[in-house]
Amino acid sequence: MFYLTIDILGTIAFAISGVLVAMEKKLDIFGVFIIAFVTAIGGGTLRDILIGDFPVVWMRDYTYILVVLGAVLFAVLFVNQLKYFRKTLFLFDTIGIGLFTMVGVEKGLAADILPIMCIALGTITACFGGVIRDILCNEIPVIFRKEVYATACILGASSYFLFRQLPINIEYAYIGAILVTILTRLVAVKFKIALPNIYKR
Amino acid sequence: MFYLTIDILGTIAFAISGVLVAMEKKLDIFGVFIIAFVTAIGGGTLRDILIGDFPVVWMRDYTYILVVLGAVLFAVLFVNQLKYFRKTLFLFDTIGIGLFTMVGVEKGLAADILPIMCIALGTITACFGGVIRDILCNEIPVIFRKEVYATACILGASSYFLFRQLPINIEYAYIGAILVTILTRLVAVKFKIALPNIYKR
Amino acid sequence: MFYLTIDILGTIAFAISGVLVAMEKKLDIFGVFIIAFVTAIGGGTLRDILIGDFPVVWMRDYTYILVVLGAVLFAVLFVNQLKYFRKTLFLFDTIGIGLFTMVGVEKGLAADILPIMCIALGTITACFGGVIRDILCNEIPVIFRKEVYATACILGASSYFLFRQLPINIEYAYIGAILVTILTRLVAVKFKIALPNIYKR
Repeated sequence: MFYLTIDILGTIAFAISGVLVAMEKKLDIFGVFIIAFVTAIGGGTLRDILIGDFPVVWMRDYTYILVVLGAVLFAVLFVNQLKYFRKTLFLFDTIGIGLFTMVGVEKGLAADILPIMCIALGTITACFGGVIRDILCNEIPVIFRKEVYATACILGASSYFLFRQLPINIEYAYIGAILVTILTRLVAVKFKIALPNIYKR
Repeated sequence: MFYLTIDILGTIAFAISGVLVAMEKKLDIFGVFIIAFVTAIGGGTLRDILIGDFPVVWMRDYTYILVVLGAVLFAVLFVNQLKYFRKTLFLFDTIGIGLFTMVGVEKGLAADILPIMCIALGTITACFGGVIRDILCNEIPVIFRKEVYATACILGASSYFLFRQLPINIEYAYIGAILVTILTRLVAVKFKIALPNIYKR
Repeated sequence: MFYLTIDILGTIAFAISGVLVAMEKKLDIFGVFIIAFVTAIGGGTLRDILIGDFPVVWMRDYTYILVVLGAVLFAVLFVNQLKYFRKTLFLFDTIGIGLFTMVGVEKGLAADILPIMCIALGTITACFGGVIRDILCNEIPVIFRKEVYATACILGASSYFLFRQLPINIEYAYIGAILVTILTRLVAVKFKIALPNIYKR
């Protein structure tokens, strides 16, 4: 129940971020919905395809499609008010990638995938909705250019395999890993930490 | 037999629309063929991947690859004459999305997918070839920006589930749904109806 | 063993080509790694998805992910020296597409796919990593615009089905097909042969 709520809050935050990018590109209402939907479920869809789990997750029940529809409606109606929610949305988004990462890791483990690949699957679940959104909007994906975003997911997912070695309940390892992802992102944004520059200035 | 002919006419129209976009981008002959092929079969391929039906449809026999090859050859040779066929091509394309939508819906039903997801699958079958074409050509997909195109597919696919409730033969429901898609598009183009503008002017 | 070495040299060459494109776009180190990885394994991944072979190839062991990591590290550290390796990289890349094409063809045959589709699968294996790289970097894929690249793969893969008709050992047919791909590309680059221009000048 708790996880489900977080999952849905994350989906809402992702969908709204899709609406904002799509509206900036002046897409029509169908385009806005598709971009929002793809942002919210693209990562999970790619994960399911890579491990061969069909039909992909959003086809199995109406949760995702209804949540995205609601989020799009809300975002389009209150687009001018969204700036007041900026911090809330950022928080949802950050909690969202924390949980989505672990959903991907768990799915990988259930499919008997090697640990490093589970970390990759977790990161894909959390980040590739945004990558597909940016490609559909004709932009180089933002996570390839700036911000500690995927890095937070990689650290969080990796920490799970560490925590599992400790003599603690598996649920605590799970929650600990989510916290690592969230805190990494919060600290990085707060202190404006970015990946090291590999180019000469 | 009748469906097959329409399917092939639709494939031809889709392939030619791919050739026209690719030639505008000055692609070489290999690029033109790939764009034409992707436009014609991309939607069906994505549908098959999402529901896990492998190998994807165009790999099972030579129909699609030969039809696209023929269409590309024709379009490249007679590119200057294509403008005289504009109305014919538009009609093929419109009939094509009508049928492709229902092919996707039927595939979804056969795979035991929920009704709304079947409508999504139908729309993906009809529209996402064009989306992949536009992405490969480095454009924001045209169906996200203008025209009642996906909307016609959504209406047509939805009407099928309505018609199935009526005390009529299932074939009539099928054909009725195709007609709804086609007529929606024709009427929208004829009267220049577009989706409501969600932006302030 | 021999094939494995070539496979890895090809993967290295593909990954380095990804690094070079990504650095030109000023991506951060995460973006550079993802582009390198996608360039190296994107073609094989798409092939596995189309025929329904899951989990996709790079998820099954650590070879690819480690090779790409090594190649990225090398390329980023010695980026200024890479120009001295240009010919070596071109050779790796050319040998790589020769082998990757045949890996794809063999996989298609093993999955009971029709010969022409096996040729398509081989070409996809060799070429579509570069296509996905270019899309992620917001460029029209280079193989759609110039160079005899995919054409070399198509010729090599086709020649395999010809050679198999001859009264020779199947291994010779395999190696012969790889050589056809490699030689076609070398000759085309040496003599600056391109696909015929289909546009009026």
